[in-house]
Amino acid sequence: MSPTTLLLPTYKQMLRTLTGLLDKAEAQQPDRAEQLLSASIASDMYPLATQLRFAAFQAQEAVFRLLGEPVPEALLAVAAEARDAGDAPGSIADARVRIDQALAFLDTLPDDCLDESGTTPITIDAPGRGIFDLTGAEYVRDWALPQFYFHVLMAYAILRGEGVDIGKADYVPHMFAYLRPETGIPA
Amino acid sequence: MSPTTLLLPTYKQMLRTLTGLLDKAEAQQPDRAEQLLSASIASDMYPLATQLRFAAFQAQEAVFRLLGEPVPEALLAVAAEARDAGDAPGSIADARVRIDQALAFLDTLPDDCLDESGTTPITIDAPGRGIFDLTGAEYVRDWALPQFYFHVLMAYAILRGEGVDIGKADYVPHMFAYLRPETGIPA
Repeated sequence: MSPTTLLLPTYKQMLRTLTGLLDKAEAQQPDRAEQLLSASIASDMYPLATQLRFAAFQAQEAVFRLLGEPVPEALLAVAAEARDAGDAPGSIADARVRIDQALAFLDTLPDDCLDESGTTPITIDAPGRGIFDLTGAEYVRDWALPQFYFHVLMAYAILRGEGVDIGKADYVPHMFAYLRPETGIPA
Repeated sequence: MSPTTLLLPTYKQMLRTLTGLLDKAEAQQPDRAEQLLSASIASDMYPLATQLRFAAFQAQEAVFRLLGEPVPEALLAVAAEARDAGDAPGSIADARVRIDQALAFLDTLPDDCLDESGTTPITIDAPGRGIFDLTGAEYVRDWALPQFYFHVLMAYAILRGEGVDIGKADYVPHMFAYLRPETGIPA
């Protein structure tokens, strides 16, 4: 599996998962859905509005890093918006825009764009921690994927904890592409 | 990245993360740590005791599946123990045994054991959903990794929600192997 075939489908699938989770939140809790953007797992953790934006940001950031290109200012602004979302959570429509922008960006990428990126040198400057040097392959496995899943699953956990009725089928809806047709059990 | 170099380090690193999270829970909440095993994100979700065991189970299950071998009965018993952990959460020491068994198993595997498994046909029989047919590579990316991260991160979210003071450095401690020495900032 190249970084392209590993990372890009993962990002697209899981961003669509987030869209589906928001669909369910809005359908099930129409009067309360916008408030959920300020909910969090703990009072000193980032709220849902942040988790959604970090997922959208990181799915794009990793591509630029693996291509050895600077992360565009407009994209860094999404990360800043994420960090500020405790005070300015925006609306669900705003969050959907960030997810849709990430999906649209990923759709522009050639199918082999990251194939050579496994040996690209990656530097992560983590404020307060130090500087980390990895290859592209190590970055994908040990940083990009764990971080991205972190934000997707904190979003899931927040919504689940707030009473939105979601389950495994909402988390991995991409799996239904692999369903053996005659075995499908109607919901 | 082969399934071996992607999956096995991810499993080992993240199982060690779970061990570290339990260390912090015991150190910070010595009188309450055992009770945390029954905590969950929502009342109708599996508790911490289950999440830890599913992570330990799945890290081994995926290897057997990718090798085209039946999952051993003793390992299926760990999954059953996970499902029953709402009624029988066991102790933190019990949970550590399951994680340590998974790590010990992963350590016995040759460095190239899953290299040819990307084309292995995988069948997932999901009770109540249907039967899913994937290649090994699709299974790794679209099922094994998302499921494993799900349980690791629900464990994280449960502990964080219960007031255990954990953060990014506890989630990705394996990153410190990549720290540029002179840049490290003492904790």
